[in-house]
Amino acid sequence: MTTATPTDPDYEARCRASFARQAVMGTLGAELTSITPGAAQIDMPFNAAFTQQHGFLHAGAISTALDSACGYAALSVMPADAAVLTIEFKINLLSPGRGERFIFRGQVTKPGRTILVADGQAFAIDADGAEKLIATMTATMMSIRDRPDLKG
Amino acid sequence: MTTATPTDPDYEARCRASFARQAVMGTLGAELTSITPGAAQIDMPFNAAFTQQHGFLHAGAISTALDSACGYAALSVMPADAAVLTIEFKINLLSPGRGERFIFRGQVTKPGRTILVADGQAFAIDADGAEKLIATMTATMMSIRDRPDLKG
Amino acid sequence: MTTATPTDPDYEARCRASFARQAVMGTLGAELTSITPGAAQIDMPFNAAFTQQHGFLHAGAISTALDSACGYAALSVMPADAAVLTIEFKINLLSPGRGERFIFRGQVTKPGRTILVADGQAFAIDADGAEKLIATMTATMMSIRDRPDLKG
Amino acid sequence: MTTATPTDPDYEARCRASFARQAVMGTLGAELTSITPGAAQIDMPFNAAFTQQHGFLHAGAISTALDSACGYAALSVMPADAAVLTIEFKINLLSPGRGERFIFRGQVTKPGRTILVADGQAFAIDADGAEKLIATMTATMMSIRDRPDLKG
Repeated sequence: MTTATPTDPDYEARCRASFARQAVMGTLGAELTSITPGAAQIDMPFNAAFTQQHGFLHAGAISTALDSACGYAALSVMPADAAVLTIEFKINLLSPGRGERFIFRGQVTKPGRTILVADGQAFAIDADGAEKLIATMTATMMSIRDRPDLKG
Repeated sequence: MTTATPTDPDYEARCRASFARQAVMGTLGAELTSITPGAAQIDMPFNAAFTQQHGFLHAGAISTALDSACGYAALSVMPADAAVLTIEFKINLLSPGRGERFIFRGQVTKPGRTILVADGQAFAIDADGAEKLIATMTATMMSIRDRPDLKG
Repeated sequence: MTTATPTDPDYEARCRASFARQAVMGTLGAELTSITPGAAQIDMPFNAAFTQQHGFLHAGAISTALDSACGYAALSVMPADAAVLTIEFKINLLSPGRGERFIFRGQVTKPGRTILVADGQAFAIDADGAEKLIATMTATMMSIRDRPDLKG
Repeated sequence: MTTATPTDPDYEARCRASFARQAVMGTLGAELTSITPGAAQIDMPFNAAFTQQHGFLHAGAISTALDSACGYAALSVMPADAAVLTIEFKINLLSPGRGERFIFRGQVTKPGRTILVADGQAFAIDADGAEKLIATMTATMMSIRDRPDLKG
């Protein structure tokens, strides 16, 4: 893993402001609990409104939070005027999305001027507080500049 | 593409019942508008509650609907007592999730007793009804049997 | 699928010259049998030197040819001074790599100034000439410019 | 990462015998330098016969060695009568394949009776012995049993 140096000293405020504009995070009840240069953590409670047919958290809800964790890990090391867009990601669902709450961690594996690669892990937390790895993601992110209409 | 023969004549009722149990589909306002042997279509309106920081549909919301489209395409050709689980998927985001509504199509590329591979395409529909390809997915699905606790 | 208009009228000569510089293609006995704007085909004989432990063509050999098919599909629609680099790809192995020869097709799904997405299919051809789909790939390609050291 | 307990005490001999049957490993000059329960390492020299158009190791050659590293990591924790097949993998190419030699490491992230997930990293080693991460892979492997024709 590469510990990236953020080029923007205000990275935290910038990432938190962008996260606050992601309406889907509020809909999911997700919070950005940590943002450091090249790494982000999102916490989310279980919510039956986002389940699949067996009552587990839907793979898409896990993807939503992991994609944002990877995206903010990437945005944290981008210049102040950059916007982040997801080019693609892959997710492996290792265990059912069963838990009281969930933690999603994203880290930048490879920083870059245009292309950044981030890896993420999703954990389910049971009533006893035990963490279980339930999914892993690799995401390719793009740093967009010179687009006044796209910010953060 | 392989046109699979469903082993279960009641595949449509079985898929629709499972879809109805996916609470997240109701939350998203998504409907299963077509299910044939090896193919499924899901329609969904734009909803600002599922957007990312630039106001587009979040990649995770697109993933949720595409994963379900691929999953029901797979379930449609499974035996009556099987349950479908997503092992993994990859999604490429080709254009922003901007539109009045969205269509998600999934097709079985490779049927199998245990492992099935499905491909999906997401389209944004604008006010004039024009379709634009915004994402593609490849998903690996597993057919689970002999698990009375998992159905559909 | 998008039929892209090549910006470079000499795209074919440029792609063929680049292919000729890919030493691994010669090592595999692979030929660029077709190159049109946005699409490429590579043919390759079975060769026991590239097999895995069960005697089938190794997934990596299939990946090598499919990656090049996707890469030349992308290069064919890039400007004359651009070089192509693979950012990432995913491959699903649908059936064993068993056959007398193999055909690899790549097509550009989404053209772009910096990022292009291509999809590929690998087919095994048996002694009777029957084609069988054995693998699918989705690849994300990058167009690199202003790098005199990177060409084609 | 999960440290898996191998169910077969002869896992090392079994993995080494299977590796020796992978003709492509000999063709690439690749060696299985380490195999422990749930982890494998493959070493390979640079070889101009496997390069792409800019003289770097082709993404497909990197994929070949990483897929085998992930595959033997998985096989090491399978029962003695199992064979390993790659269902799919995704690779991100982080830096050009430039180096004197290369190291490929695979580890089992999630063991399982039928499906195993492994992650891999490729490193380029320069003349001074410095390691540089050049690629990461996530691979989904299948454990095949009751198939006398498939072994290892």
